[in-house]
Parts: sequence; C-alpha cells; structure tokens
Amino acid sequence: MRNLLLTLSYVGTNYHGWQIQPNGVTVQEKLMEALKKVLQHETPVTGCSRTDSGVHAEMFCCNIRTENKIPCEKLVLALNANLPYDISVSDCREVPDDFHARYNCKGKEYVYRIWNSRVRNPFYEGRTLHYPYKLDSDKMNEASKSFLGTHDFKGFCSVGSSVKTTERTVTRARVERDGDLVTFRVAADGFLYNMVRIMVGTLLEVSQGKISVEELPNIIESKNRERAGFTAAPEGLYLHRVCYEAEVLNYEKE
Amino acid sequence: MRNLLLTLSYVGTNYHGWQIQPNGVTVQEKLMEALKKVLQHETPVTGCSRTDSGVHAEMFCCNIRTENKIPCEKLVLALNANLPYDISVSDCREVPDDFHARYNCKGKEYVYRIWNSRVRNPFYEGRTLHYPYKLDSDKMNEASKSFLGTHDFKGFCSVGSSVKTTERTVTRARVERDGDLVTFRVAADGFLYNMVRIMVGTLLEVSQGKISVEELPNIIESKNRERAGFTAAPEGLYLHRVCYEAEVLNYEKE
Repeated sequence: MRNLLLTLSYVGTNYHGWQIQPNGVTVQEKLMEALKKVLQHETPVTGCSRTDSGVHAEMFCCNIRTENKIPCEKLVLALNANLPYDISVSDCREVPDDFHARYNCKGKEYVYRIWNSRVRNPFYEGRTLHYPYKLDSDKMNEASKSFLGTHDFKGFCSVGSSVKTTERTVTRARVERDGDLVTFRVAADGFLYNMVRIMVGTLLEVSQGKISVEELPNIIESKNRERAGFTAAPEGLYLHRVCYEAEVLNYEKE
Repeated sequence: MRNLLLTLSYVGTNYHGWQIQPNGVTVQEKLMEALKKVLQHETPVTGCSRTDSGVHAEMFCCNIRTENKIPCEKLVLALNANLPYDISVSDCREVPDDFHARYNCKGKEYVYRIWNSRVRNPFYEGRTLHYPYKLDSDKMNEASKSFLGTHDFKGFCSVGSSVKTTERTVTRARVERDGDLVTFRVAADGFLYNMVRIMVGTLLEVSQGKISVEELPNIIESKNRERAGFTAAPEGLYLHRVCYEAEVLNYEKE
C-alpha cells in the first residue's frame, strides 16, 4: 500500500472550505471525486488542516493511500485533468507508511491580504478583505510583534473547537504595505480555530485606535476572547506554506 | 455641459469586451446602466479603445457628458455601488469640452502575463495564458527589442480592422521572468487590432525555435500577417496604462 503526499492549491471562493460535509461543496470532496476517477477506487484523504468557507490555499497538503502503481508525475497530470479550474495539484510524492498530513505537520504559514483603498479592486474581489479607510500598517506591524513566541492563545480561538492545548508558538508575525495592499504574515507550529482571522481583526482594531499596541500583550495573556478583536472576513486569508521534516519529503520507497 | 473623464478597471473574463454590441454583455453596457441610474439620464460613453472578449484592463479611460452637478468623488462612489464586482471606477475628473478619450490618447501600455508551469495555477485561471513548456524568456526578451521604434505593423494586425495607417511607434518592449510568471510589457503611441496578441504569439514561436531572433526584423518589414506568429489567447492580456497630456488631466473648470 502506497502512502502519497499531495500538494495542492485552491481558490476558496466557491467552496465550503476543505473538509467534506453534508451541505455544500468542499475541496476535499472534489479531490476525492478526481482520485476515484483516476485510481479506480475510493481512498480516504487526510488533510493537513481544515480551512473555512471562502479561505484560500496557496499550498495545502494531504495524504492518500492506494495500491495503484501510477507514477507520481502521471497522477498529478491526471488529477489536474479531473479537477475543477479553481483547484490544482502541484506535487505528489511517496511518504513513509506512518506519515500523517496533520500529525506530521511541523508548522504552517498564513498570509492575510487587505486591499486598503477607498475604491474596490475587481482583480482582488473575493481574494482580499476590502478595507476602505487608511490603515496604519506601521502600528499594526508593531502590534503584531506581541504575537511572537509561545503563548496560550485561548483568547484568539473561536468557540466550538476542541483541542488539548491552546498554547502555540508563533515564529513569524509581520505587517507590510505595498501600495494599497497590506499583508499580514504569520507562521506558527500550529493554529487554533479562526486564530489568524482574530489576530487580523485585532490588528485592525489597533489601527482604529480601539486597542493600543501596549495593551495587546495583556489581551493575549487574559485568554479572554471578548478582549481580542473581531474575526476578520475569510476572503483575505491564504494558507501559504505547510512544513514537514526534510526526511519525510525526500523519502524514497525501496 | 460637463465633460468627465472616468478611469476604470475590470476583469474581462465575463464580458464580450468593452464595446457595446447586440450579442453578449459588455463593460460599456454595464457602465452605461450604472451611469443612467446615478445621473438619471442616458449618456454616451467614449472609450479610449476597444478590448476583446476576455481581455482585462488595469486602467481604462472613457469620457461622458452630463449636466448633473454631482461632485466627482461622489460619482465614483455611486458608480461603484451600481457596478458589478468585476468592474470598478477609480477616478473621475473634469476635462476640457473638446476632450475625447480616444483621439486625445497619447499612448498606451499593455502587459501580457503567461503562467509558465507544467501545472496550472488556480489563482491565475482566466487571468494568464497557461503555457506548460519551459519558455526561453531571455531569447523572447532579445527578440522583443525588434518591436522598438517606428514600424509599419501591418503584419501584426488582424484582418477586419479599418485604420488610416498601420504605422506605430513602440517605446517599450520587454519580456521578464519572475519565477513561473513570464510577462511581456509593450508601450506605444497606439496599437492595431490584435497587435499585442500577435506580438506574443510571435515571441512564443521564437521561444519554440520556429522563428529566429535574427529573422524577426524581416518579418516585421514584410508586413505579411502570415509570416508573424499566431494570435495568443485573450486571457493573458491587460490594458495597463492609458496616457493623456498633463494639462488635460489637471484641467480645472472655472
């Protein structure tokens, strides 16, 4: 039985997120349909995480099991021929039998993009948050430094998620402006439900003057969801990178 | 009677180009509908050029006539509220009475984007040409230099267009690669029908080895459409910039 790691990207606009569900079309469902056509059998698909409705992935990883001997390169081409235009597979590789796309994930990086102009940009429709009032990106960047390091991010997590621990280690947090595009990048060993979107909502409230840069560390320490900012809209969020150990990625089946 | 210059941008995917026509929805039609709602009267709209079905505009200019006294800034907001998500107006300004968006246009710049990877990119679907075989962008860039200067571009013009002269002056022509994205930029005092798309088709044939870099000047001089390359697909083409004289743009009605 082969264990295959697939890397894909998708525009989330038309999907109810990654995870298969009874109501609404999901990316996982579309991938499973394509896999069934190509491999001639059903296969479970294990994703590296969930993404919400409308959230995009520039890189998403999942693993599948098959006894089909199709070479990896051919599987990529065949899947792309059977996937809708807004989902594509960029890579396929053999991984060790015990590899699990979620448990083996060492870290992820998200990017949140904001179109900060009075006028909406048709090219970014559904692909950025449109925020028409001038943002203080320097202040947001300063505030974002408070997220760095190991914290209990319980206050930056939507209710309804069941996780053992809400402690996470953030290794990168930065806000940058390029013309009218403001980008928040955040990398961590793992993320809680809605964590990035609540971080962005909080940074927007920092720019608005509702939360001060100095106050933010206390808000994090309070572990109180109500003290953090609102949950920013999904359309600006992109899963940007998923990290595994090099030996897993370079594994060759003898 | 006010003469107003509007600047807009649009994703061309869902439109049969700019120019109003009996079959198919066009950008001009959508703009005229929005103008009628906002201004409470019909107004002719004069575009800076036509764009083909599926072609995008990062900047497109047109002028309209109205006696309505709505301030320019308010007109921008009201139009955006009445335009579909894939069209937006970014600017409105008073221009002299004799200003004409096409006749006064001093030059334009187009960008053609190619996603040059074996695997399609869902974020670029309908927004780049997907070309799966490795392009020699250096060679294409070298070849593109032949377009510079004043030439009779009759061989780079689709039949069916009626223009007085097919001589144009190209002031910029460059091919650049950024990872898997290959971009052709070309600026000129004017363009013939399908001129940029035929230039791109020709540069693709240069990369393929069907046309040599040395041969290209002769192909241009031959004025023979059959010797130039094919017409590249519309989805990679963007009208990027439209130039008018500064005094027109900075005109203030007394």
